[in-house]
Formats: sequence, structure tokens, C-alpha cells
Amino acid sequence: MSDGEDRLVDWLRRRLRRSGEDLLGDDAALLGGSTPWAISVDQQIEGVHFPAGLDPGAVGRRLVAVCLSDLAASGAEPAYAFLTVALPGDYPARRLLDGVVTACERYRVTLAGGDTAGGGSRLACSMTVVGRRRPRGSWLARSNARPGDRLWLGGTVGESALGRHLLAAGARLEGRSIHLPERFGLAERWRRLARRAVRRHLQPEPQLELGGELARRRRCAAIDVSDGLALDLHRLCRASGVGAELDRQAVAAPAGLERWAAELGISGDALTLSGGEDYVLLFALPAGARAPRAAACRRIGTVSARPGVRLLDGEETIALSPRGWDHLNGGSRPGP
Amino acid sequence: MSDGEDRLVDWLRRRLRRSGEDLLGDDAALLGGSTPWAISVDQQIEGVHFPAGLDPGAVGRRLVAVCLSDLAASGAEPAYAFLTVALPGDYPARRLLDGVVTACERYRVTLAGGDTAGGGSRLACSMTVVGRRRPRGSWLARSNARPGDRLWLGGTVGESALGRHLLAAGARLEGRSIHLPERFGLAERWRRLARRAVRRHLQPEPQLELGGELARRRRCAAIDVSDGLALDLHRLCRASGVGAELDRQAVAAPAGLERWAAELGISGDALTLSGGEDYVLLFALPAGARAPRAAACRRIGTVSARPGVRLLDGEETIALSPRGWDHLNGGSRPGP
Repeated sequence: MSDGEDRLVDWLRRRLRRSGEDLLGDDAALLGGSTPWAISVDQQIEGVHFPAGLDPGAVGRRLVAVCLSDLAASGAEPAYAFLTVALPGDYPARRLLDGVVTACERYRVTLAGGDTAGGGSRLACSMTVVGRRRPRGSWLARSNARPGDRLWLGGTVGESALGRHLLAAGARLEGRSIHLPERFGLAERWRRLARRAVRRHLQPEPQLELGGELARRRRCAAIDVSDGLALDLHRLCRASGVGAELDRQAVAAPAGLERWAAELGISGDALTLSGGEDYVLLFALPAGARAPRAAACRRIGTVSARPGVRLLDGEETIALSPRGWDHLNGGSRPGP
Repeated sequence: MSDGEDRLVDWLRRRLRRSGEDLLGDDAALLGGSTPWAISVDQQIEGVHFPAGLDPGAVGRRLVAVCLSDLAASGAEPAYAFLTVALPGDYPARRLLDGVVTACERYRVTLAGGDTAGGGSRLACSMTVVGRRRPRGSWLARSNARPGDRLWLGGTVGESALGRHLLAAGARLEGRSIHLPERFGLAERWRRLARRAVRRHLQPEPQLELGGELARRRRCAAIDVSDGLALDLHRLCRASGVGAELDRQAVAAPAGLERWAAELGISGDALTLSGGEDYVLLFALPAGARAPRAAACRRIGTVSARPGVRLLDGEETIALSPRGWDHLNGGSRPGP
């Protein structure tokens, strides 16, 4: 496979343009008609999107959360979910489905259909989620950013990727505590961060409330950070025909993340800028717009007319490439 | 995996009932609101739903056709499709996607979103299709059958299963002709049937026009025959709280199918009653209703108040079990 995921989608868009409508490109597609619906699909494959051996209930809950993150980025209110599962022969299907139903109940989503099949060699699930337009809301879109807008993040980035690295290094959640391999002889406060990172990775939280608030703004561009801040910011800029300047300090790895990155032999930037699977919203609001209510939101930069993304570090300006974990290039993440 | 697919769905329905709405059970789920939409999902896994090594374009076209068959069974007019693909490392993704787009164009469906990921060990695709309610139409449902209704089939059954057995025995389509292993030293007219059967298996045709016609009837119960006539008829009867009598002659394997069944060491009944993947509509219409326009439709029996399904063969009555190919029980089909 020589195509990255974005290149494959570009090819597909060209192929589709020959036949008319082009709905690809946003996190969710919008259906027309007098009752507007947003629809999005996503998939989770064992060993690719989550570690093999993960508790089946956690797999189910994670699938729902990851899919709903796309609806959050479109400003929709979740309504329905549809599931397909390809099960290895001895997989505990009911535990998986129980996790899916539990998460659907929590987010008030009706599980409305699906298909299960045996014969998979590893678990592969896909989910389609359907959301309603919010009352007095409009849709968020990647293409809504304008030069001069402020760039915001709905929370921190990098922790989920740290969690993924820790799991790969042998970390395990055991109830409320974390088991770390002995070679990490770290103080208690680093252990707490490790636990938070692993939980963040295994139990992401879609920012549905934030998406709902942003959908009521006059204009807002949004995307959810699933493949890394750098790559998803490039996508948002490209869809809007703009560029961006990021504040180096605002996206720098905090001390704890740097500490763990050093322990794992990777860079803190690899975690924050291209780690991915953060499932926080990255959004652009007009310069004068009031800050979102959610306390975790923070300003990280400015939208500019000049294409490309730059990291501003005092006097220094560093071009930021879209590198980030691309699902198609071997399924590997940026590693040590 | 000890659960059959139906038992797993039963368990899931009980689990869902605790949380309220139950939309499972029909081929497509219906969204509320003033613009009614029907949504259905299905999946196709290499080596489970289609033979490994099948031309990628044909895989894509087959996926679309199989999914649209569910919309046909709900009476909907296809509108949108969403695709997820888990690709083995060297799979020719563009040829697969080109097949999907070609089929979407043919059935006037807009491919509106999707997700591709690498890392699959075998190709697994899932598709969500969205259909509109037809003008002046209502939805078809499995639960609409009443005692006294006539049972109809939208076409023949058994050929697709014969095609699957022939492929497993080494048959190959080569352009417009078929290559058969030498041990089948059969006359030309049996070769023609073999070719038709393999094509029917690889290139199923969703009965969208028939579904559209039935949606304009006063009352009609429908399901598409995907897992075998016996199993899908049991599902329709169960959803409607009725039973059925099938006319043995109307569902008997025709001479050609019997000839091939003997050649393959299987029974003709195994092909027609539980072969599956026929993708014709099985439907019930009130006794006085006019016959559907499509010439291929034929009467196969009667709906009765007595639960269960019976095969009437002259004076003899044979109970018909729901056995048919169940996707979860090892992924195997009823074989020799």
C-alpha cells in the first residue's frame, strides 16, 4: 500500500467528482431534507487501533466514544448507532456488545442495527453514528476558518499517545491502579500521570457538550484530533484554504509528559504534535468571540492567510509538517 | 463462539430493552422526523462472505449490491452510502474503491463518507446505506404478515449457493465463459447453468424496483433472502407472530440445479432451502392482492396462524427447521 489515507481519499474524491456530489471531507456527512442529520462512520481493529487483549467491554465503549467524537466535531447531538463486528471464533461477543450498549446508554444513543459475522482473525468493529442538528445550532465544518480567527484546543494533547506507548512497554491498568514494568522506577506523581495517560488512551471522552456549544456560535470551524494535532490542523487549514501559526509554548509538552517521553526514549513533541487519538476538538473562532465555557479549552494560535502551518517560538519560526500517525502507512505510530 | 447470530441478536435485544427503544429486527432501521430515512449496515469479509482472491472491483460492487438488498426489503429508495475498509498491506485499494463507486453510480447512491485503515490480515469491508421513503410509499417490515396472506419470492433461490459450491470446487469465471475442473465432464447446457450460478453468486442484484413497487401496496411484509429461504422465512414469521405453509413444488430445485447438486454430492434442497445469498425478496401480500409486475415473482405458499413453517408435498406435510447458513457458527455453509 503506497497510498497514505489522505492520498487515497484525494484519489477517491477525484473519482467521485466525475459522478457529481462530493460529501467527503468533514468528520460527518450531512443529509439533506427538512430534518437534517449528520452521519459518520469509523472503525476499530484489534492490534491497529487498540492493543490486542484489551478487555472486550472496554473495546466496545471505546468504539462508541471514538465514533461520537466525529459527531462532536460536527456539532451534532447523537441519536443512533449501527454496529458491524467481525469476530474471531472464540471472542466473548456478549461482553463486547455489553460495552457498546453501556456507552450508548451513557451518551443517549439508540443502537438501531448492525451485523455480526464470525471468521475474523482479529476483532474488527465498525460503527455508524447518526446525529441531529442542535436546536438553534448550525453545523461545524472544517472549511469555516478565516484568516484572523483564533485557534483553540478543547483540552490537552499527547497524553493518549503516552498511554499507547506505556501499554506497548508493558503497562497495565489493574482496577484503579496501574502496573508499570520495574525498569520505570519513578516517583508516585509520575505514576499518577502514567495512569491518567493509559486511561485517556483506553477511555477517550468525546467532547459532545463543547461541540454543541460551538454549534450555536455565529461561525466556527472544527475537527477532532484523532491523527495528531499537526496532521488534523493541516486538514482543517486545507479545507478552509488558510494557514496557521501555532504558539510553541501553548502546544509544548508539559513537564510530566517530557519526563515520560525521556523515560521512553521519544520526544515530547512527538507526543503532543503527532501522537494522535486525543479526541479533543481543534477549532477556530473569530478573533472577538468569547471563550468557550469549558475550562479545559485553551488558545493555541492564529489562523493566517499564508498557507502551511508554522510554530512560533519567540523569535524563531519553524515550519510544521503534517506528519502524524497515518493509518494506512503500515499501521505504525511515530515511535522512539 | 457458541451463539448463533440470531441468538446473539436476541440477547442484545433483551439487553437493549432495559434501556428503552428497540429498533433491531428489520433489514433497515427507520429514523424518525419529518424526512424519514431508512438505514442499514452490512459487512463483507474475505474468505467468509466471498472467496479470497476475488477481483477487487467485483468485491466492491458486490458489497454495494448486498447492502442495497436490505434497503430493497424496506421499500426505500437508495440515497447515500458510507464505507469502512480494513486493508491487508498490499491490497489494491483503488480497484476496490473503483468497484464501490461504479456500483454507487449505477444505483444512484452518493458515497458520502468512510474510513480506511491498514493492518487487516484479510480484507474486511462494511457499508452503511441510507434510503429515502418512496413518494406515496410506506415502509415494508418483517412484521406485516397476517394469516391468509400469500407468500411470494422475487426470483429463484439456490443458484447463488450452487455458484459458491462451484467456486469452492475450482470453477473460475474467465470473461464471459466459465472454466470448470475437468472432473465435471458435463454437456454445454449444464455449463451455462454453472456460469449463471457463479455470476449470480459474485454479482447479486438487489431488487430495488420490486421493493419500490411493494412499498406502494396497502400492506406488505418483506425480508431479503440472504441466509437461506428457510431461515429468513422463519424470521419473517417470528416477527409477524405467524407460521407458513410452503408449496413443495414451488420451492423444489429445478432439474439443472438437481443435476449439479448430484454432481457435487449435495442435495438440491440444501441449495434452494438453505443455500442463502440469493438476495431476492421474500414477501407476503394479502390474498386478493394483484401479482407484482416483475415476471420473476412467484407464489410459494401461504401464511397461517399456526406457528412454524411446513412444507406441503401432496398429502405429506414436512416441518421445516430454520437451518440455513448462520454466519456465526464457524462461518461454514451447509455443505455436502
